[in-house]
Amino acid sequence: MDRKNRISMAVIRRLPKYHRYLKDLLERDIKRISSKELSDIIGFTASQIRQDLNNFGGFGQQGYGYNVEELYKEIGKILGLDKNYKIIIIGAGNLGQALANYTNFQKEGFHVDAMFDINPRLIGLKIRDVEIMDMDNIEEYVIKNNVDMAIICTNKDSAQDVANKLVECGIKAIWNFAPTDLKVPDDVIVENVHLVESLLTFTYLYKTSKE
Amino acid sequence: MDRKNRISMAVIRRLPKYHRYLKDLLERDIKRISSKELSDIIGFTASQIRQDLNNFGGFGQQGYGYNVEELYKEIGKILGLDKNYKIIIIGAGNLGQALANYTNFQKEGFHVDAMFDINPRLIGLKIRDVEIMDMDNIEEYVIKNNVDMAIICTNKDSAQDVANKLVECGIKAIWNFAPTDLKVPDDVIVENVHLVESLLTFTYLYKTSKE
Repeated sequence: MDRKNRISMAVIRRLPKYHRYLKDLLERDIKRISSKELSDIIGFTASQIRQDLNNFGGFGQQGYGYNVEELYKEIGKILGLDKNYKIIIIGAGNLGQALANYTNFQKEGFHVDAMFDINPRLIGLKIRDVEIMDMDNIEEYVIKNNVDMAIICTNKDSAQDVANKLVECGIKAIWNFAPTDLKVPDDVIVENVHLVESLLTFTYLYKTSKE
Repeated sequence: MDRKNRISMAVIRRLPKYHRYLKDLLERDIKRISSKELSDIIGFTASQIRQDLNNFGGFGQQGYGYNVEELYKEIGKILGLDKNYKIIIIGAGNLGQALANYTNFQKEGFHVDAMFDINPRLIGLKIRDVEIMDMDNIEEYVIKNNVDMAIICTNKDSAQDVANKLVECGIKAIWNFAPTDLKVPDDVIVENVHLVESLLTFTYLYKTSKE
């Protein structure tokens, strides 16, 4: 099924937000919800919500609304959360360690299996139960352990070399926190979290709000 | 000048990327660049680049291209980087500590002045030269120290209360890392970094790339 070509990135980027709000509703024991009520809490229009969810077959029923648990599970399945993922982190500095410690990922089925660094002072340490290993061992590790995804938390100057190495090892998904744009083959997915760019946009909005 | 109403968010979100690439060019001692060359490295089309930069007065010259240093400085000014900003971080857990340690922010003129937490085991500790203070002292601190921005790194359940407190103290800019959407008055700028949402989008793309 060639779903990724049919659904726009804009819709895809909204799905995690639906997923988060539906989880909150479930935790508050709310069983069903109309697109209007969902609109009031999420902030998208009701028609936007109906249109978005129709992309995936439409789970609502006229006059009844959406079954919260069913919709939550379905969106989870669409996002791929019906399986677990093995993740490695490259770059075991402060940010890498913070991500290894970030329990919200584990709650969604993501498990950080190992971290890698070139710094001998870090190699051998454990962050929670995650060992920091020597970058020289990464290829062997990835192949033996069926790693799904890699998170790059190195500085910008090392990031492209690390990405090349990961691609060589067969990694097809890189979540990149280094402040640079990686060049990878077409079959490798890269999602960037550019913290400095977010901060600069934020600063612009702050600055202009005072003018 | 009512700049923020004239320029679309899409353009604004591209400015930090221009800023980053121009900095790289400066570091490589490149003095001028055409929109075509800039296009080759940034990945936006040359016409997009000319259009974007025209929003701010257009710094290019026909047949000469852009003066890299001038353009870099001008975009920095537009983003508000011609002054320094005092930041506090609320939530001194792993992520908060990692952000306090993140040297890329300091390079752009952002200084983390203090961190706040409710956890007595953290209060009094220092992360680099940044002290972790008791949340009870935040109001006094913000008012005394002319704090510009606050970063929320708490869990989702505390984030709204923290935001309310910050608004009470007069903070007008909140960079939010908690996985929740904050409700704040219209004159307060909130920029979200939703890490779990980024991870879930990434997972969707990874999953569908294998189908």
